[in-house]
Formats: sequence, structure tokens, C-alpha cells
Amino acid sequence: MALGGGDDDGLINLIRSEICSVESNIEVITTATLEPMESGQAYKEAFEELGCNSVRFMHIDEDNKADSQDYITRIEQAEVIFFTGGNQLRLKEFLSGSKLHHLMQRRFIEEEITIAGTSAGAAAMSNRMIYEGYGSYSLMKGEVKTTDGLSFINNVFIDTHFTERGRFGRLAHAVSKRPEFIGIGLGEETGIIIKHNNHIEVFGAGVVTIMDGSQVSYSNLKDVEEGDPIAIENLTMHLLVEGHEYCIQDRAFRKLSQVKRNTSAKV
Amino acid sequence: MALGGGDDDGLINLIRSEICSVESNIEVITTATLEPMESGQAYKEAFEELGCNSVRFMHIDEDNKADSQDYITRIEQAEVIFFTGGNQLRLKEFLSGSKLHHLMQRRFIEEEITIAGTSAGAAAMSNRMIYEGYGSYSLMKGEVKTTDGLSFINNVFIDTHFTERGRFGRLAHAVSKRPEFIGIGLGEETGIIIKHNNHIEVFGAGVVTIMDGSQVSYSNLKDVEEGDPIAIENLTMHLLVEGHEYCIQDRAFRKLSQVKRNTSAKV
Repeated sequence: MALGGGDDDGLINLIRSEICSVESNIEVITTATLEPMESGQAYKEAFEELGCNSVRFMHIDEDNKADSQDYITRIEQAEVIFFTGGNQLRLKEFLSGSKLHHLMQRRFIEEEITIAGTSAGAAAMSNRMIYEGYGSYSLMKGEVKTTDGLSFINNVFIDTHFTERGRFGRLAHAVSKRPEFIGIGLGEETGIIIKHNNHIEVFGAGVVTIMDGSQVSYSNLKDVEEGDPIAIENLTMHLLVEGHEYCIQDRAFRKLSQVKRNTSAKV
Repeated sequence: MALGGGDDDGLINLIRSEICSVESNIEVITTATLEPMESGQAYKEAFEELGCNSVRFMHIDEDNKADSQDYITRIEQAEVIFFTGGNQLRLKEFLSGSKLHHLMQRRFIEEEITIAGTSAGAAAMSNRMIYEGYGSYSLMKGEVKTTDGLSFINNVFIDTHFTERGRFGRLAHAVSKRPEFIGIGLGEETGIIIKHNNHIEVFGAGVVTIMDGSQVSYSNLKDVEEGDPIAIENLTMHLLVEGHEYCIQDRAFRKLSQVKRNTSAKV
């Protein structure tokens, strides 16, 4: 589950109402933020307000190594792992490639535990993540930068605060560079549930933008210098709201028959 | 000719090098701006620096009515009419439907004089123009507002400062509402020459974004309330840079064989 940033009450309500019980072990990973105590405590309290009684947070960083036995034991028992916002490069730096990271990946595949994240915590979920690219620079070759993510899912770019910060250009650029990737732009207070690395279902108040480069018939990317503006023919864009899903394998947009997820009411 | 705002030396150089001679009558319309003297004088000097010796400006507003005989005589003699930036609603308010406006339209069709504009002056050129729609609101039904423009061209939405201000969402929204319109998003210092209401050729430093709604296969626009987020399936997007053109009738992207327009060097 990935949220585009902003108010995350909706994501927390959805985890509580559809994913976990009050006894579920929830681990909040505060590594991305530079204010781990405040952030961790706020999430703990938010889950506890909904009745969850087994919520803890861990701040993996240069001083608190990923592979401590305590963390490994806790992640072995976790049923929900929640990544906070902050800077996605910190997740790569302190978590990527650790035993703890591999344990999360293995459990996510074999046991179908829930991995959730907002903002940087959402952006880091794929095997590649965008970490730079601003405004008009977003359409200049080389100005959109990507790096390895945490690889819970593959071949998607998840970008966040998407409509609020005008990130269409940078996602279009990233997808044009890697047309085998689907671009997913999450508005704030808007999120997705991805099942089986394929079905993307929308929840929340805003819009999820899908960019599909599989129909691109021309691009100047290989011919121009760094810093030059890029040209692309035939990028496909979809806008999805709650009640719709996107299927990555079929590259298909679908309206769902059900109406509303429980993202607003307390449970 | 339409420029996306920002530094307009490129547009002025292009008019001087490809469109007019030093004797051409150039009329700058400062109606959109609230600083007409400063803006008009600056454009007059910019054209004069390139050798043009017949440049004047007119500020049509509540005190200086469009249909004065002096303005009509001058527009009868103009070979280039240049609209400055400012607020496009002022162009509609003070110019639209006047005899002067009809004179410009008639001369543009019959005599192929050049109509040029930057920012608001570019946005107002079509028969419909976007004048409101910001950030995350741009994908909420009813939050993108359009009104009549000056109708030198038809069935396109021209949006400006496009990548700089993250206006992809609002152009996508406008095109989804009116799929017979082509959306044209101009980056700053980037412009287009539109010939015969059909061929769109790019000049300048940045990117022109084309949004084509003719392949849209689903939209929730008719089913949701004002303020609700919108869903759209299959919007086609192209990114064009200098050396490329887009043909509206064929909805076709083309790479041109020629290389560079004279938008940077003095002539």
C-alpha cells in the first residue's frame, strides 16, 4: 500500500479496517525522517486510537544498524510494516541489502504480510525510485534522477505529492527512459493497494496518474546531450480515482463495481 | 506564434528574422498587463534594437476603447500584432467582439499577417482559453475554468508557463472536458508557430506538451459532482522540442529535417 503524502489518516484507517486486527504487530520504520521520535510516536498513537495495541517503531540509521537481533526478531513477528515519509535515499542507505531488508522481502512474498508507506516510504517500494527532478528541469535530459529502491514491487516508478507539486513531467521523463516501467503518480491523501505486483487499486480523496510508455513510437533521448529538452511521441496517460483499478500486466484501466473503501470513518 | 512566457528574446528574434522586415508595422497590445507603459516601451525598444523602425504600442482598456479611429487605422496597417502577458481575462473584456477585434481576425485570415503573443497573450489566441486551475485542484471537477478567447485559431487550449508551474493536470482536465480540443502546454522560453490552424512547429529552449483526448475510452466527468476527482482512460501525450511539429488535423507528431530556428542570435 502506498500513499502520496499529506494527511495519512485514510491510509491508517484502511490498514485498520481491511488489513489488520487490534492484535496485529505493526512496525513503523522511521528511517526516512530526521525526526524519528516525533514521527514514530505520532503513528503509534494514531494506530492506538483505532484500537491497535501492538504498535512499535524503529529508526534504522548510522547508529541503529538494520541487522540488530532485536530488529530482526521484531520484523519476524510483524504483520504490518509501515514506512514513514522523509527522504527516500535514507531508506536505500540504511536498509537496502541488509538481512533485515531481505527478511522483509522474503516474508512479503511468502507470507503476504502488508508493506505500507507514505511519501518517501511509498516512493522507495519499487526496484527503482525517482529522487530528483524539479519543475522545468524535469524535461531536460539527465535532470530526473533515479536509483535502486527497496524492491517490494518491480518495474513501477511511484512518485508522490504528484498533482500538488506538478510532477507529471518528471514521471513522463522517467518512464520514457525505462518504457518497461509503469509510472504511478499519487496525489496527496490518495493511495494504492498493489496486489500480486499487478493489480493497482485506488483509495482516498484525489487522483492517481498512470503513465504507460509501451506505445511510445519516437524519442530523442539517445540523440541529445545532457541538459537538452526531451521529445517523446505517444505516451499514454490515465487518471484513476477511488473505485478504479489498473492492471499492470494487461496495461488495462478498469472501473470497479464496488463503491467506497473505508478511508474516512473511524472503525 | 505563441510563447510560453519567461524571457521572450527568442520570440522577438524569430519575428524579426523570419517574419518581418525593418520597415514592418508592429503593434504591441499591452491590454493584458497592468503596467502598460513599462511593458509597451520595453517591447518597442527590444524590436528597435533589432532594427525595426515602425513599432508602436496600444493599451486598450476601460479608458482607451478598442474602436477608436486611431486604433482601427493602425491595425489596418499593422503587419505584426503582438500581445503581451498579463491576465488573459482582460483581453476578453476589453477587446473581444469589438470592431478592432473583428478587423484583426479578418486581416489574419485574408492577408496572413502575423499574430504573436506571450503568456496571457498566447493563452488568449484560441476560441477557448483556460484562466484558472491550480495544483491539486486541477483534477477536481469544476476547478479548471475556461472561457472564450480571441479566436484567431480554433479548437486548441494553449497553456503557458507549463512545466514551470506544473500545469499538466489542468490541461488534461480541460482536454477531457472538450476532447475535440488539442491541449498545447508551452514551457517558458518555448513557443510555437501555428500555420493554417493546423501545423504546430516548435521553437525555443524547452518542451511543448501536446494532450490529445481523441483516444479517451472512459471518463467519469458526467457522473461525478463538482469538486470530486476526475478519472480518464487513455489520454495521449506528446512532448515536442525544437525541430519537431504536430499536425492537428492528422493528430500526428513529426520530426523535421531542418535543424535550428534563429531564436538566439541577433540578426
